[in-house]
Amino acid sequence: MLDTLTVLAPGLLGGSVAMAARSRSVARRIVVWSRRAETRASLKGLNWCDTVCETAEEAVREADLVVVCTPVEHIVPTVENIAGAIRPGALVTDVGSVKGAIVRHATAALAGRAHFIGAHPMAGSDKTGHIHGHADLFRGRPCFLTPLPDSDPDAVEKAAAFWSALDAIVVRESPETHDEIVAHISHLPHAIASALCAYLADKNPLWRDLAGPGLRDTTRIAGGDADLWRGIFALNRDELLRAIKGYQDALEALQAAIANNDPLAVRSILERGRNYREGLPG
Amino acid sequence: MLDTLTVLAPGLLGGSVAMAARSRSVARRIVVWSRRAETRASLKGLNWCDTVCETAEEAVREADLVVVCTPVEHIVPTVENIAGAIRPGALVTDVGSVKGAIVRHATAALAGRAHFIGAHPMAGSDKTGHIHGHADLFRGRPCFLTPLPDSDPDAVEKAAAFWSALDAIVVRESPETHDEIVAHISHLPHAIASALCAYLADKNPLWRDLAGPGLRDTTRIAGGDADLWRGIFALNRDELLRAIKGYQDALEALQAAIANNDPLAVRSILERGRNYREGLPG
Repeated sequence: MLDTLTVLAPGLLGGSVAMAARSRSVARRIVVWSRRAETRASLKGLNWCDTVCETAEEAVREADLVVVCTPVEHIVPTVENIAGAIRPGALVTDVGSVKGAIVRHATAALAGRAHFIGAHPMAGSDKTGHIHGHADLFRGRPCFLTPLPDSDPDAVEKAAAFWSALDAIVVRESPETHDEIVAHISHLPHAIASALCAYLADKNPLWRDLAGPGLRDTTRIAGGDADLWRGIFALNRDELLRAIKGYQDALEALQAAIANNDPLAVRSILERGRNYREGLPG
Repeated sequence: MLDTLTVLAPGLLGGSVAMAARSRSVARRIVVWSRRAETRASLKGLNWCDTVCETAEEAVREADLVVVCTPVEHIVPTVENIAGAIRPGALVTDVGSVKGAIVRHATAALAGRAHFIGAHPMAGSDKTGHIHGHADLFRGRPCFLTPLPDSDPDAVEKAAAFWSALDAIVVRESPETHDEIVAHISHLPHAIASALCAYLADKNPLWRDLAGPGLRDTTRIAGGDADLWRGIFALNRDELLRAIKGYQDALEALQAAIANNDPLAVRSILERGRNYREGLPG
């Protein structure tokens, strides 16, 4: 059991981290900090927050383990901000959807003092805020752990044990491989759904009321917070652009098969897609 | 109340039509026909089938109203097939996802004898077969009705009353406008999801197991029957190709905004998409 767990910026993911840790007795004490005063006020008295701090530095002072749950663009600045206050030897992890740039800079910011082991639990929602979090958000979900070749082995094992204790399934990958994978299975689907909604938004508004459940499902993730996703796209820009390019080629192949009245080619693409879909977990 | 309602090819949609009609006492007698002998055998004794016929001609002989529920490519051949057997003045409708070509040819096939009023209920599933049907599939769902300018007004009202009696919300559009609308809100999302799955099928198969609920939702419709959708794409080819072209431009705009590191442009597209998504019904 940890003595003190600190969660910085407990929104949907961070709130769920704290709730999951509390319900599984992962830490004796849970300390939180949030940038906004209203959020800090809303956290007081919740059973998964023992202490709500006014500053991130104060919140990490006694922490054995710090989980940084800010939007991706603020993870490195937040780590830089706490670097002077953190206990020597403490472990810092995060929940960011991009790992390459974050792991490199956060590790450097803590070098010689504490350890950064990047993480990315594949759980979430188009909802935001700790109010939508729950203690089982990570249960049975993959959680990427992205140590560097020279990361401290004890810190890596401690981070793996933490995420496993929240019932996530830990998957170790390099930060670069992580970024390539999520560009395809998460960021690309989001870009596709957002582009579809942005396109349909220019059409006759009455059409929208006629849509069936298919369009609703296809576009659910486009309901996500625009600023969060702008930040994710920016940080994973190169991998996402590669994935979009590959997808455009696939869509063009389907388009050409339809344009050429080629039933075998159309059927083959649809059938290949169907087989892939049938094999998705969940 | 109708005396005899005939449902040709009762799969998910046709089975649901018959179940909905039975539960709402829309017809005294429900007659069905299915092409496959095993399906005909499976229909016998179900409470929403009073008579199971061996041929479509036999099934329509006493019908006041015939609902053709075959895959879209077989609707016109089926109507041509029953044209000689149908009662003079009877009404024929359908559930096809494409209307222009079907309404034109089916109306011509019945000319001088019976009436064809095309319909397309916006309800369904990636599942197929009457086993997945249910009596409330159309409740509160839009159902396009696509009469021609010279369609018999009484036949149009009778068709509207039938779909309303199944608790669908009847929306009247020309066949051409219908095809443009569904190309955008139904066929395009399907093409996009299928192309995404076909693209990801070429990637490392281990990636699939790491996907979250976002990819699952985004691609649900790609699990639909490949032959049914190949037929729909072929029949609505021109409108679908126009919609795909427009979507490709929208995706390119997002791609360019990401490539140019233009946060305001990326945010604006994501926000426009988010607003559209929030306004979807359901």
